[in-house]
Amino acid sequence: MNPLLRLLKFGQGYWIDNLTRHMIISGNLKRRVDKQGLRGVTSNPKIFHEAIAKSDDYDAQIETLIAEDRSNIEIYEALVTTDIRDACDILRPLYDELKGQDGFVSLEVSPHLAHDTQGSLQEARRLWQIVDRPNLLIKIPATTAGIPAIEELLFEGININITLLFSIERYQAVAQAYLKALERRLEAGKPVAHIASVASFFLSRIDVLVDQLLSHRIPLPGRSHLEPHPEDLQGKVAIANAKLAYQHFKQILQSDCWQALEAKGAQMQRMLWASTNTKNPAYRDVMYIEPLIGPHTINTMPEDTIEAFADHGRVKETVEENIEEAQKIITELEKIGIDFHFVASQLENEGIQKFIEPYDALLEALGTKCQQRRNRQQVKPLQEVAQQLRRLVIQMTTDAGSGHPTSCLSCAEIVAALFFHEMHWDPRAPKARNVDTFILSKGHAAPILWAALWEAKAIDEDPLSLRKLDSTLEGHPTPNNPWIKVATGSLGQGLAAANGIALANRLDNIHARVYCLLGDGECSEGSVWEAAQFASLNKLSDLVAIVDVNALAQSGPAPYQHDTPVFAHRFQSFGWETIEIDGHDLAAILNAFEQAKKTGPTAIIAKTEKGKGVSFLEGKDGWHGKALDPASMEKALAELGENQANVIVEPRRIGTYIPPQRKPAPALSIGYSIGDEIATRDAFGKALKKLGDFLPELVVLDGDVKNSTRTEYFSEEYPNRFFESYIAEQNMVGTALGLAVCGKISCAASFACFLTRAYDFIRMAGHSRPPHLIFCGSHAGVSIGEDGPSQMGLEDLAMFRAVSGSTVLYPCDGVSAERLTAQATQTQGIVYIRTTRPKTPVIYTTDEKFPIGGSKILRTSKEDKFTLVTAGITVHEALAAYDRLKQKGISTRIIDSYSVKPLDVETLSKAAHETQALFVIEDHWIEGGLGDAVAAAVNSPTPVYRLAITEEPRSGKSEELLERYGISQKAITQKILEFMG
Amino acid sequence: MNPLLRLLKFGQGYWIDNLTRHMIISGNLKRRVDKQGLRGVTSNPKIFHEAIAKSDDYDAQIETLIAEDRSNIEIYEALVTTDIRDACDILRPLYDELKGQDGFVSLEVSPHLAHDTQGSLQEARRLWQIVDRPNLLIKIPATTAGIPAIEELLFEGININITLLFSIERYQAVAQAYLKALERRLEAGKPVAHIASVASFFLSRIDVLVDQLLSHRIPLPGRSHLEPHPEDLQGKVAIANAKLAYQHFKQILQSDCWQALEAKGAQMQRMLWASTNTKNPAYRDVMYIEPLIGPHTINTMPEDTIEAFADHGRVKETVEENIEEAQKIITELEKIGIDFHFVASQLENEGIQKFIEPYDALLEALGTKCQQRRNRQQVKPLQEVAQQLRRLVIQMTTDAGSGHPTSCLSCAEIVAALFFHEMHWDPRAPKARNVDTFILSKGHAAPILWAALWEAKAIDEDPLSLRKLDSTLEGHPTPNNPWIKVATGSLGQGLAAANGIALANRLDNIHARVYCLLGDGECSEGSVWEAAQFASLNKLSDLVAIVDVNALAQSGPAPYQHDTPVFAHRFQSFGWETIEIDGHDLAAILNAFEQAKKTGPTAIIAKTEKGKGVSFLEGKDGWHGKALDPASMEKALAELGENQANVIVEPRRIGTYIPPQRKPAPALSIGYSIGDEIATRDAFGKALKKLGDFLPELVVLDGDVKNSTRTEYFSEEYPNRFFESYIAEQNMVGTALGLAVCGKISCAASFACFLTRAYDFIRMAGHSRPPHLIFCGSHAGVSIGEDGPSQMGLEDLAMFRAVSGSTVLYPCDGVSAERLTAQATQTQGIVYIRTTRPKTPVIYTTDEKFPIGGSKILRTSKEDKFTLVTAGITVHEALAAYDRLKQKGISTRIIDSYSVKPLDVETLSKAAHETQALFVIEDHWIEGGLGDAVAAAVNSPTPVYRLAITEEPRSGKSEELLERYGISQKAITQKILEFMG
Repeated sequence: MNPLLRLLKFGQGYWIDNLTRHMIISGNLKRRVDKQGLRGVTSNPKIFHEAIAKSDDYDAQIETLIAEDRSNIEIYEALVTTDIRDACDILRPLYDELKGQDGFVSLEVSPHLAHDTQGSLQEARRLWQIVDRPNLLIKIPATTAGIPAIEELLFEGININITLLFSIERYQAVAQAYLKALERRLEAGKPVAHIASVASFFLSRIDVLVDQLLSHRIPLPGRSHLEPHPEDLQGKVAIANAKLAYQHFKQILQSDCWQALEAKGAQMQRMLWASTNTKNPAYRDVMYIEPLIGPHTINTMPEDTIEAFADHGRVKETVEENIEEAQKIITELEKIGIDFHFVASQLENEGIQKFIEPYDALLEALGTKCQQRRNRQQVKPLQEVAQQLRRLVIQMTTDAGSGHPTSCLSCAEIVAALFFHEMHWDPRAPKARNVDTFILSKGHAAPILWAALWEAKAIDEDPLSLRKLDSTLEGHPTPNNPWIKVATGSLGQGLAAANGIALANRLDNIHARVYCLLGDGECSEGSVWEAAQFASLNKLSDLVAIVDVNALAQSGPAPYQHDTPVFAHRFQSFGWETIEIDGHDLAAILNAFEQAKKTGPTAIIAKTEKGKGVSFLEGKDGWHGKALDPASMEKALAELGENQANVIVEPRRIGTYIPPQRKPAPALSIGYSIGDEIATRDAFGKALKKLGDFLPELVVLDGDVKNSTRTEYFSEEYPNRFFESYIAEQNMVGTALGLAVCGKISCAASFACFLTRAYDFIRMAGHSRPPHLIFCGSHAGVSIGEDGPSQMGLEDLAMFRAVSGSTVLYPCDGVSAERLTAQATQTQGIVYIRTTRPKTPVIYTTDEKFPIGGSKILRTSKEDKFTLVTAGITVHEALAAYDRLKQKGISTRIIDSYSVKPLDVETLSKAAHETQALFVIEDHWIEGGLGDAVAAAVNSPTPVYRLAITEEPRSGKSEELLERYGISQKAITQKILEFMG
Repeated sequence: MNPLLRLLKFGQGYWIDNLTRHMIISGNLKRRVDKQGLRGVTSNPKIFHEAIAKSDDYDAQIETLIAEDRSNIEIYEALVTTDIRDACDILRPLYDELKGQDGFVSLEVSPHLAHDTQGSLQEARRLWQIVDRPNLLIKIPATTAGIPAIEELLFEGININITLLFSIERYQAVAQAYLKALERRLEAGKPVAHIASVASFFLSRIDVLVDQLLSHRIPLPGRSHLEPHPEDLQGKVAIANAKLAYQHFKQILQSDCWQALEAKGAQMQRMLWASTNTKNPAYRDVMYIEPLIGPHTINTMPEDTIEAFADHGRVKETVEENIEEAQKIITELEKIGIDFHFVASQLENEGIQKFIEPYDALLEALGTKCQQRRNRQQVKPLQEVAQQLRRLVIQMTTDAGSGHPTSCLSCAEIVAALFFHEMHWDPRAPKARNVDTFILSKGHAAPILWAALWEAKAIDEDPLSLRKLDSTLEGHPTPNNPWIKVATGSLGQGLAAANGIALANRLDNIHARVYCLLGDGECSEGSVWEAAQFASLNKLSDLVAIVDVNALAQSGPAPYQHDTPVFAHRFQSFGWETIEIDGHDLAAILNAFEQAKKTGPTAIIAKTEKGKGVSFLEGKDGWHGKALDPASMEKALAELGENQANVIVEPRRIGTYIPPQRKPAPALSIGYSIGDEIATRDAFGKALKKLGDFLPELVVLDGDVKNSTRTEYFSEEYPNRFFESYIAEQNMVGTALGLAVCGKISCAASFACFLTRAYDFIRMAGHSRPPHLIFCGSHAGVSIGEDGPSQMGLEDLAMFRAVSGSTVLYPCDGVSAERLTAQATQTQGIVYIRTTRPKTPVIYTTDEKFPIGGSKILRTSKEDKFTLVTAGITVHEALAAYDRLKQKGISTRIIDSYSVKPLDVETLSKAAHETQALFVIEDHWIEGGLGDAVAAAVNSPTPVYRLAITEEPRSGKSEELLERYGISQKAITQKILEFMG
């Protein structure tokens, strides 16, 4: 038999103190009463706080009360008394069955009235009236102000639970008040049989305080020693005190006074043990239950004590055991110098404080909730917009037969709030700069963006053209649509672009905000955290990231599902402000946007449901990236209802912004002479610095290698236009793109090999088609030498050639490096400049021009037998080979193919026509570089041979490596001699 | 005149309570005494705690005391009494000048003795003896146990500061004890003139508690009202109480008893106001100073109260003003029902607790510090190893003329601790699996790794061969050296590989640990956080990351410099345990390694100095990646000293491990028939699942697209060998590499386009030369259709061709997809398999073989005019074009070039020889793919034309896009017809 039920046999009922509406609605309370021997309930502001603030069980009633225009405190009382009344009704059959001996529900007066007799009287009467149930107990603390109120209320016929009892003295006063009240009733000719009262004695709190006081008295090791030893009393005083109190209770039962009352049918005032959870983990978890079992007692247990007791509680009548020992404990306590009066007084003070704190917290939380509800009624039009966006998204994707409707549904409120309330933007002007920007990092939610633009009358393209050939409403956002600044769809990239846009706004003195909507799944991408770091380091306070935590990824649950604090902690650890909200609560969303204006960057972590609004999609796995069939669409539309959204977006811009007139760059003045030794990376850096002077829109980013790429020259001269991106190349590229799409000439530099880190970003930059975006990869090829293969850019030409609309340049000396850098700033789209670590001699005069798509014939004669096509470092090897071969009477043509893409096909084809073979030499893997390009472009019968890296390189001196891997002057010469047989 | 100095005029001296050694050493205390009117000092365990735990002012003395083998408590007393004695000496001239009227220093007995009369007596006597200064006051609390001790000690001639006074009643007892002690001295014929005592009355704490109690009594708005109003008393009680106490003091002065004592030269027991900092910010900041100024008083002020008072304190004699009001306040307090006895009792309890807590914290912190120091003495041999590694690193890099010595110097202790103490490893067996693993993520610190291996006798290659051609001691770690599992040097990659190694250990039941050393700079790489997330999600508790926070990056300070909590918070937010340590404190390092064993993954955040150990390098910017010249080297070596390191690394393995015998995979049974429609991605997935059955070493990773790549079939069948990597492709690739280098056949899959995200990891995987590492990129090309360009893999062939030692496969139907997947598992190195989204018909019979480097001639005849070379989806377009052309009487040869790298050059060359032109058709950018490869490989006079993607693609139907971008059957046919004119 369950120990809890066995308690009843010994005259003890157990109560709980964690009443909530959920417990009532779910049938849990009734089940406990019917099956588990539960005999009573007390309310608890801490539990109510949790329940009201964190569940939605009360929301419907709150809604109604708000509609009735009730104040917050009235709402509080209505919520609580509803629960109490319902609980009373559940316990009523028991109460009736036990003839009013048990089956009570307690409700406390405000703890702020603990020292206010009159106030307590008034509130107790009012609550008694509101609840209007015979098995209600009003809870009043046993303070000196409480006792007269208790007597008066009992006299008036109101049942009282006297709480916060610690000392026997105070208990005696309480018992007397009860007897007195009953006597007065009899005197006044009133019945007494139905009057009930319990005296609540608190237990574990006594031990907590007394144990601490005892610890002050425990002698230091080896020092003097007190008798009795304080440690012997730890954890014993509360029980001892309660046992002695019970003896007093028994004395009262034997008093003449009580006997007389009992004869008139009065019920005894039972003892209730409260605060019975064990707080010190070193103690037994049922220590406040087992020793206090006996007739006419109640034990109010918290949930885990109930579980523990049900599991291993030992039941026998114990409350009258060891009375002498109890007396001894109290005596020894005094001997040690601990005055129990003081203890009781401190506990009473603390007890009241512990009631006030959750009570006030509850009122505050309720106030917030009420305010949110009141706000929500004001945001109804936006809610209708959100529903309309949902409807449109479902129609669009069903018509397209594909797409990601559920990923759109989760962010409908967020998108509605942004486009129809929060953002300053101009639906007539997609290219306006002085407006807020929206970046849809979770690009697969494109349909809701198109829907929002359509509803705001910013586009007039038929939404049902979604995903159809030649529609700009593509599957993921692309700049084919004029509203799209950067292509998204490869996740985790939006925030980096947003960084760039926020930087551009700052540079152009535009006080606009940038909103970036991310999915929770994409937060697994490290690039998000690179971007987060950059934003906080650069204090991009106008940047707002919104994470749509819809908990479901493509192939199953997202790693952290709805655990929004994970995201909040991460953003915080990267220096962001964070706000966690319900992402379907428009009032909360608007409030978060307001908060985000105070400081930033701010991440709003929005808990949402994927597929929100449609019952068979909401929170359901397996729906990612699937359109509904027409029948399901109809069902979904029916669920979403037919309210007409009617929010007009008025054009709102931020100040005025006049874009600067771009002047063509004059020719750079270059001071090199033929034969000067200078690394192309150095010349690139010098050119950037010079260009900075007359290209105010030139901005430069580097990934902690500015002293290697030589962007440091620019950084020193134009610190405001240089952005140190640290070792985070993905964000560097994304930020550079963001700057570029705002009209900056953006240049990002790193080691060529480390640009591979950002290939996906470079790829997406290609799809974003920025006006000007330059990359420079330094330290190309094996010629870097001792650092070894990890630092060698050997795939950069392959990588950059295969980028949408790219230009690939590879200078070989200082003059061409400077001129090509200048050219790059005037070239549309993505331009890659490949530079070299070692110094190379200047071979061009400063008046040389280097058009994109051109090449330079460095050596030629009518006798040219072979052509050596090359670029960069190996130009110098080819020139040296030329001399060697010349000595052997072999004339070669040398072409510096500095424009790798576009290639100078004409010159190359002519050479193919005029010479016997083309040898392409490059410091790059043999695949995908200049050799491939030349071989494919020169469609002629002349053979093309490629000298490039074909085996894993290693550390060594630069010249040793060129030799070892077959691209040195010697290797070239040898190859040609071999070819000639 | 400074208000502080003016106080003296009115008989009040001010004391401070924040004595520290720093204050003594720096001359601050003396300056205050000499110039600022300071009259006394009390000690404070909270301040001592801060000073001893967080400064190094005490470290030298601690070192000495440890050497003398003193216990922690002895060390504590020695430290504190040293400060107290020194402070006494500083105040002594003042004490002498004032004839013992002021100039005192207080020292408290242990707060654990607050209720122990005998203990207090003994300790007070001992401290008095140790300090041995006449201007010392021993501080004893005014508890009931304290008062007899106070009297006795005063009688013995020991000066006493009576502390923790709250009530007038207790003050009276204290005053009586003083008088009694003096009388007893006189009776005993002892002098009294030099006996000093102060009675310390606490102020602001009273208001804190009373204000709270008053707040319990403030009526609710609109409810009943108490008279007097509790709010009117808030913030007033402490001052009122003190003023009344002062009146009692004055009464004593007028008593006969005192007059008699004064006549014998006794000094009065002055009143000291303590706890005078204002705690409620709503109150005036000098409220506990201004109203209590008067003769024979002291005010002990905290630092900010001193500043506030110096700034705006108003000085006049006030202590006897408003006495009536003070009385009224105390009376009203009683009226309101607040019993001041209880208040005083609670404050006394709390006050003792507030003394005990910092006192215990101080002893604990001191204990930790002492333990660290004791440990440090034990780790001396390791310290010598660290120094030896430093010496070697400097010699190696200077000899090489390049390298990163300063980045090595910062982690010398960490590396020494790992290789010479912590790790279980076997210097004889670089390939052992059942040992701990070390991954040097900050690969540029390679020299210290080589140095450690050399010192441990694990390599016999001359350390001075560093960076020289053919040495395995390369500039960054590469697997040319047998100890290197994965090449590092591209930062932020080590942790992902460590994840893979930890997973492999788990799979193979090897209980070894994986240590990964990172730099602080590389923590800017998002990939570190991808790896951190993966590690915690997969509960890799044997993984330990050590971050060498040396604060300096390549081009300047690292973003967070020495702000180690930033790193700790980040790792915590990614689910890691963290430990912050001084990275040069070997005892702390070893301790952290021990702690890390409890749970994990654990990140040890080590604060270090770049260039540690060499004065001109340590913490100096501008030294990254620079070797010393020979002269500087000599200087550095001289600084590093010449101790001989002598720690032998004994082989230590973990259990036994027998590698499984790998069996060759039997041929897969494939159930497709010609014409069946199946996507190659699906066939790939099915093949993986079948292979899983007889390849126990096959492991599969996916990036949240397993339902698209179809690795889900494998994941369902072999959940233990499938690792969901979420949307974090860099970590997926790095983890796959880690698994691969442990002997797994590792396969990582995602959309082809998203593998670009991990190009740097793929590049480094190439340089790491794993036995078997397979990548599958699905959704290649424009044929994916409506999702648009962001989802189209158009550069993957270019990317994977340009990877060291890679194989690139591109099947066109179910049979070839399955066979090539099986082939991939048997192929050395990195294999890329490209798959397609749409279904394609099966064209091969199941007995067809697909050797690597082969191709299939699908159509041929003697009349072949042209050759169509293609692979994947466009094979089917070519076959359809074949039919169309055939109808027009044009015979073509169709080659399925499924092995893109290596190419079947022979077959292609033959075709070039036998037909008039080659048309290469591919669903890829025109650059870097099959077209380039074929054009470059087929070195013949036959022209090669490329049909591939040349313009930015968009959303649309698959077949529409093939058509639009010129690679459909129709486009092919047309191209050939055009060619023919």
